[in-house]
Amino acid sequence: MKGDKNVDIQALKDIANKLRIDSIVATNASKSGHPTSCASMAEIMSVLFFHTMRYKISAPRDASADRFILSKGHAAPILYAAWAEAGLFPVAELQNLRKLDNDLEGHPTPRLNFVDVGTGSLGQGLAVAAGMAYVGKYFDQAPYRVFCLVGDGEAAEGSVWESLHFASHYKLDNLVVVLDVNRLGQSEPTSLQHHVEVYDARLKSFGFHSLVVDGHDVSELVKAFDEAAATSGRPTAVVAKTFKGKGFPGIEDLENWHGKALGAEGEKVIKHLQSQIKNDTITLKPQPPLAEAPKVHIADITLSSPPAYKPGEHVATRLAYGTALKKIADTNLRVIALDGDTKNSTYSDKLRNAYPDRYIECFIAEQNLVGVATGAACRDRTVAFVSTFAAFFTRTFDQIRMGAISQSNINLVGSHCGVSIGEDGPSQMGLEDLALFRAVPTATVFYPSDAVSTERAVELAANTKGICYIRTSRPNTSMLYPNDEVFKVGQAKVVRQSAKDQVLLIGAGITLHEAVAAADTLKAEGVNARVLDPFTIKPLDEAAVVSHARAAGGRIVVVEDHYQAGGIGEAVLSAVALQRDVVVKHVFVKEVPRSGPPAALLDKYGISAPHIVAAAKAVLKA
Amino acid sequence: MKGDKNVDIQALKDIANKLRIDSIVATNASKSGHPTSCASMAEIMSVLFFHTMRYKISAPRDASADRFILSKGHAAPILYAAWAEAGLFPVAELQNLRKLDNDLEGHPTPRLNFVDVGTGSLGQGLAVAAGMAYVGKYFDQAPYRVFCLVGDGEAAEGSVWESLHFASHYKLDNLVVVLDVNRLGQSEPTSLQHHVEVYDARLKSFGFHSLVVDGHDVSELVKAFDEAAATSGRPTAVVAKTFKGKGFPGIEDLENWHGKALGAEGEKVIKHLQSQIKNDTITLKPQPPLAEAPKVHIADITLSSPPAYKPGEHVATRLAYGTALKKIADTNLRVIALDGDTKNSTYSDKLRNAYPDRYIECFIAEQNLVGVATGAACRDRTVAFVSTFAAFFTRTFDQIRMGAISQSNINLVGSHCGVSIGEDGPSQMGLEDLALFRAVPTATVFYPSDAVSTERAVELAANTKGICYIRTSRPNTSMLYPNDEVFKVGQAKVVRQSAKDQVLLIGAGITLHEAVAAADTLKAEGVNARVLDPFTIKPLDEAAVVSHARAAGGRIVVVEDHYQAGGIGEAVLSAVALQRDVVVKHVFVKEVPRSGPPAALLDKYGISAPHIVAAAKAVLKA
Repeated sequence: MKGDKNVDIQALKDIANKLRIDSIVATNASKSGHPTSCASMAEIMSVLFFHTMRYKISAPRDASADRFILSKGHAAPILYAAWAEAGLFPVAELQNLRKLDNDLEGHPTPRLNFVDVGTGSLGQGLAVAAGMAYVGKYFDQAPYRVFCLVGDGEAAEGSVWESLHFASHYKLDNLVVVLDVNRLGQSEPTSLQHHVEVYDARLKSFGFHSLVVDGHDVSELVKAFDEAAATSGRPTAVVAKTFKGKGFPGIEDLENWHGKALGAEGEKVIKHLQSQIKNDTITLKPQPPLAEAPKVHIADITLSSPPAYKPGEHVATRLAYGTALKKIADTNLRVIALDGDTKNSTYSDKLRNAYPDRYIECFIAEQNLVGVATGAACRDRTVAFVSTFAAFFTRTFDQIRMGAISQSNINLVGSHCGVSIGEDGPSQMGLEDLALFRAVPTATVFYPSDAVSTERAVELAANTKGICYIRTSRPNTSMLYPNDEVFKVGQAKVVRQSAKDQVLLIGAGITLHEAVAAADTLKAEGVNARVLDPFTIKPLDEAAVVSHARAAGGRIVVVEDHYQAGGIGEAVLSAVALQRDVVVKHVFVKEVPRSGPPAALLDKYGISAPHIVAAAKAVLKA
Repeated sequence: MKGDKNVDIQALKDIANKLRIDSIVATNASKSGHPTSCASMAEIMSVLFFHTMRYKISAPRDASADRFILSKGHAAPILYAAWAEAGLFPVAELQNLRKLDNDLEGHPTPRLNFVDVGTGSLGQGLAVAAGMAYVGKYFDQAPYRVFCLVGDGEAAEGSVWESLHFASHYKLDNLVVVLDVNRLGQSEPTSLQHHVEVYDARLKSFGFHSLVVDGHDVSELVKAFDEAAATSGRPTAVVAKTFKGKGFPGIEDLENWHGKALGAEGEKVIKHLQSQIKNDTITLKPQPPLAEAPKVHIADITLSSPPAYKPGEHVATRLAYGTALKKIADTNLRVIALDGDTKNSTYSDKLRNAYPDRYIECFIAEQNLVGVATGAACRDRTVAFVSTFAAFFTRTFDQIRMGAISQSNINLVGSHCGVSIGEDGPSQMGLEDLALFRAVPTATVFYPSDAVSTERAVELAANTKGICYIRTSRPNTSMLYPNDEVFKVGQAKVVRQSAKDQVLLIGAGITLHEAVAAADTLKAEGVNARVLDPFTIKPLDEAAVVSHARAAGGRIVVVEDHYQAGGIGEAVLSAVALQRDVVVKHVFVKEVPRSGPPAALLDKYGISAPHIVAAAKAVLKA
């Protein structure tokens, strides 16, 4: 990198205006998009991509390269323009913005080789950036840095403040947050408008080295980013006062231009911008990374020892999760755990106790927790396991949803599912988590029912791409499987069967044990019931469900510690949707539950063995 | 209220220790709970409930009374103890804590007449309190005040910072936030431990009048709350430095005591606390409210004029939402709207343009948005309609989940559902919102398919208890119903039928129009298809689904602009679960979609008319 006085300021100014023009041309071609949101950050992009950041055009996702996260994803056109102008692909390609057969989508996704995570749901980029920075500083111990551009509108999202706190708490001095304070939201001015001094005070109080700059002054930006590079012990925030639609005469700083292509105004604006450009040829090239990041191996992860439970032993699946997590961490240095101050309940503390350096405490901030994990897993740097109560993943559904768009490979583990947690009451009971995770297109959903299968679920999740969810339970439960039982994603297990079964009972976790008890009762009453453990709810072993249902007279009872919608029952119904002569009696929690002892709650809410027996008898008549 | 020098400081100290004892006794009786979390806030509760707050024991939820929100809901025992000691119910009743047949649950819920909203998922109370304070200041214009106790652990939740910003932006000087900085989280110390100066700086930067006090010094607390009462133009934060387990010898300020009854230690601790009490008889009584809050009428809400569309007119259901919202606001002064800077897309700006004082802009902070609405709707003060993109309700699933526990009556309206939004791409597409809302036990889910039914959905939602969700669409669609058509919750409409139908097509929103087009094509090919509009997805008109399916040969095709899990398809499958001889072909979005023109996306993701035709033909063979 050249010293400050040798920086070609005019060239950076010219590039900024070229990026503006590119953004206008692209959004005019697509007749939609956010050119004014691009214009406010043109100088920032120019300085970052053509002065500050170290990366390789030949390998945009190189592990050694600086990362850039565009948290305000709607400014995608200028991100695309920056990479095009830097030489990754032809600038003319930008005119295919938002077309169905092109990866230059309305908001960035990792379908593009220079995008790490999808953005566009606001306020999420910084958590991901913080996760990347944490990995860079503590795990990779490499000099690459992470830059995150946050819009002022999205700075109202609490998730941003969770991540700011996280970044300063962990002294992520390899992280730079650029706040693009362009004053205007979508439908009206932001609440803080151009009060950059308020942002500055807030960022300082959150532990940042914060600088206020004129975001359209290339020299100030160069200086600020140089200062960030020289700052150690805390992250830097560059609060950039900017104008939405900067450089667009008759549009700059005006309302009602959010998310609109310039259309007929475009030509005039482009002419104006061209008149500002001194030299149309870009000669600046990105600097290469300072050093190589370490090579890491995150495939073929195994438990360090097989499950070792005694017959008759009772172990909660949440505890078996902790045991297995530590075991896979034994065999792979890149297995890490993250939790939100529930580690002594979820048992992620088993990893922390063994390998404290590979545990990231995220405190009570679940959105940031999942975002940091997404960032940590990015570019295949770690195998991240995130745990909290199942209920609290609802807090971060948007991050999980975006995780699917981001092609993220993270593992989420929710303990304390259902009414079986007992006295803590409904606020702590995960009763909608299966609906949440089944609705995630890239998800694999494990719901192990004993300690043996839980350990294998953890091992499988570590090796399964996409978002893996493991639902664990609070109560102790008995062993259903021998220690050497083999489990596969999408493969159900028959727990009870006979040649003359009349009904198929399907449960998981605590309700599988209730189903087994129900089968005993039914048998004593002369009714043979087959019992199926789905193991994974998504993908569900549809072939097994159908064949065992047929073998049991086309009668199924599904029982789950979950509300009706989106859980195991509806997954089973989807599996048999096209089967005539199969009926399903679904037994589930029908209302907001209350506090009480676990067994009493199972009974009160209709999912205990006696209720399963009654449901089976009812379905025998169907 | 007595002047400061006449405050009976010793009596307040004694009450604090009595509340500590009550909390120990109750949690020892239940053998679970969080007595140490109660102990840190004993003086705060004593001063608030026996000095500062104005309320009526005879009517705990009186509209005129000061409100108290215990955001750290796990400290429920001391909240219950305060009301018991104030005289609402016998103190002995506290020993029924967490029992199945008692409403003194593990975390507070409105099953108790002195609790407005359920808490226990952390970081949510302040948004609710801010909503109550907004209503008190701007709508009721009454002198009641709102107090919210926030734990330091939960202050890591971003939602807290969203709400702090909201409260200062709207100058809610009737709101007092008490931050209980007891230093210890569940599994380790909080990240900021006892750095009250950091909390203070952050709160000041967020626009609060902030005071740091010794949270165990009754005199300091009295003075702080008096100062809060005298502060105008901004809310007050009282940063209370406290100790977890304060007054519990051998337990105070130590780790590993979170969420544990004291058990055998209890007796010794109680003896110690009793030794501190000078006078065991409580003589302090709460002060009554200063003035009556206005009476409001929020029932029997109607549109000011019926739908008035022309046949052949094409109107987006999102626009019809705005039209109807303004119309119900015409007839009821307590209809209000809240949005998160999307009002010109959701069309909630129709209300704002007509009645700017009844619109609350919540900016881009969806968790606070829903929480504020929950608070605004509390104690039946307003009929709140909240809108944003359907996708962004995933950001606030936890608040919605808690809304069900809170018995909240709020109306949520999600626009831009599904791939039919087009070029903006997957981050902006609501494809899991039906799964989310169907999993909420108190929810009614409307999915209107034309402008007429949308207007009626809004009118019905305004009069329906529980959480109402209305899913609206971005594209313009034709009218399906005459302006005088009558709609009811749980009542489907047959859009097409004949005496010899062979298949039942079920769609909603954009896909209902595709289904109608498919029926036309099928008819031309000699296949009669019946078309059903469910109108509400929850409750689904199960009787109509079953009877029309039977009339159509037991063949159903469900098509929806949503992922597979938890949507219309699985709702229909649940409806026919016990029907033999009914098969369902479900057509849905199977993967993360991409940017493109709406019609092209419907086709690419398999939910356009030609795909419905193919599905119908396939199911004819089933």
